[in-house]
Amino acid sequence: MIILGIDPGIAIVGYGIIEYKNNKFRVIDYGAVTTPAHMDMLKRLELVYKGIDLLIKNYNIDEVGIEELFFNKNVKTAITVAQARGVTMLACAHNDKPVYEYTPLQVKQGVVGYGRAQKAQVQQMVTSFLNLKQVPKPDDVADALAVAICHAHANKLEKTLKNIGGRYV
Amino acid sequence: MIILGIDPGIAIVGYGIIEYKNNKFRVIDYGAVTTPAHMDMLKRLELVYKGIDLLIKNYNIDEVGIEELFFNKNVKTAITVAQARGVTMLACAHNDKPVYEYTPLQVKQGVVGYGRAQKAQVQQMVTSFLNLKQVPKPDDVADALAVAICHAHANKLEKTLKNIGGRYV
Repeated sequence: MIILGIDPGIAIVGYGIIEYKNNKFRVIDYGAVTTPAHMDMLKRLELVYKGIDLLIKNYNIDEVGIEELFFNKNVKTAITVAQARGVTMLACAHNDKPVYEYTPLQVKQGVVGYGRAQKAQVQQMVTSFLNLKQVPKPDDVADALAVAICHAHANKLEKTLKNIGGRYV
Repeated sequence: MIILGIDPGIAIVGYGIIEYKNNKFRVIDYGAVTTPAHMDMLKRLELVYKGIDLLIKNYNIDEVGIEELFFNKNVKTAITVAQARGVTMLACAHNDKPVYEYTPLQVKQGVVGYGRAQKAQVQQMVTSFLNLKQVPKPDDVADALAVAICHAHANKLEKTLKNIGGRYV
């Protein structure tokens, strides 16, 4: 299964594409779709949509994992980033790809096995799982890869549970 | 000029389509694109996009006015509505339509001439400007028509100012 992990944003949309097969991970690509701050918001949203659309089309993605947004302070930033997250999800929908949402806590849980793990721990685990030589930069890219790994694990857990008659909550 | 005014939302996206010609308004259509609360978010975003896309294509829209979002309490609601606003704007971008954003204060100012006007006053002015028999319901529809009127006025002011060498701020 080829998974696209996304760390949503407006200036930087981190993405990580991995293959998960026989309990093994293989990195396919990772990076970021970026939009310049001085650009008109309409054009930035178009760029984000087009970037995600291209990734899905180029890499034969099966499923998408995307991080949920959490803001407790700056509502203005929340609104701007959420608009971009909306078009990101739409690009997946227009390509008929299922989208799974994970909270930051679930991502940490799914990668490190511990919801309160530090950012550095998560990045270390991502680097190790994917046999990378160094921690991917910027953080948004490492986060996107973490979401992809989290989805692979959640997916596997769900299937295992289904086989024994259980359910992943 | 045919203007599409939009009051963004996820459950209800109010729209109002008016023609503004020789300082006169003519209503073309108004209503709402709605999505059921129980529906998957991905599908809801797709519906909103499709609804706006259809309106633009069917009505030969020239320009779009859309209200800015203001939330000071519920960030979760803000995020959900902003995601829908993102796909709404994207539908305009994909149809090459210019989008103009107005704050609630600017809309009141542009319709009633007074930024602190009450909702009922705005609705009364909308009804009167457009020669409607009654106030359009729900509020989201009246709001969308107000945005369209506001854009017509702002546009006219900008053109007038340009003619005398000024600038609309």
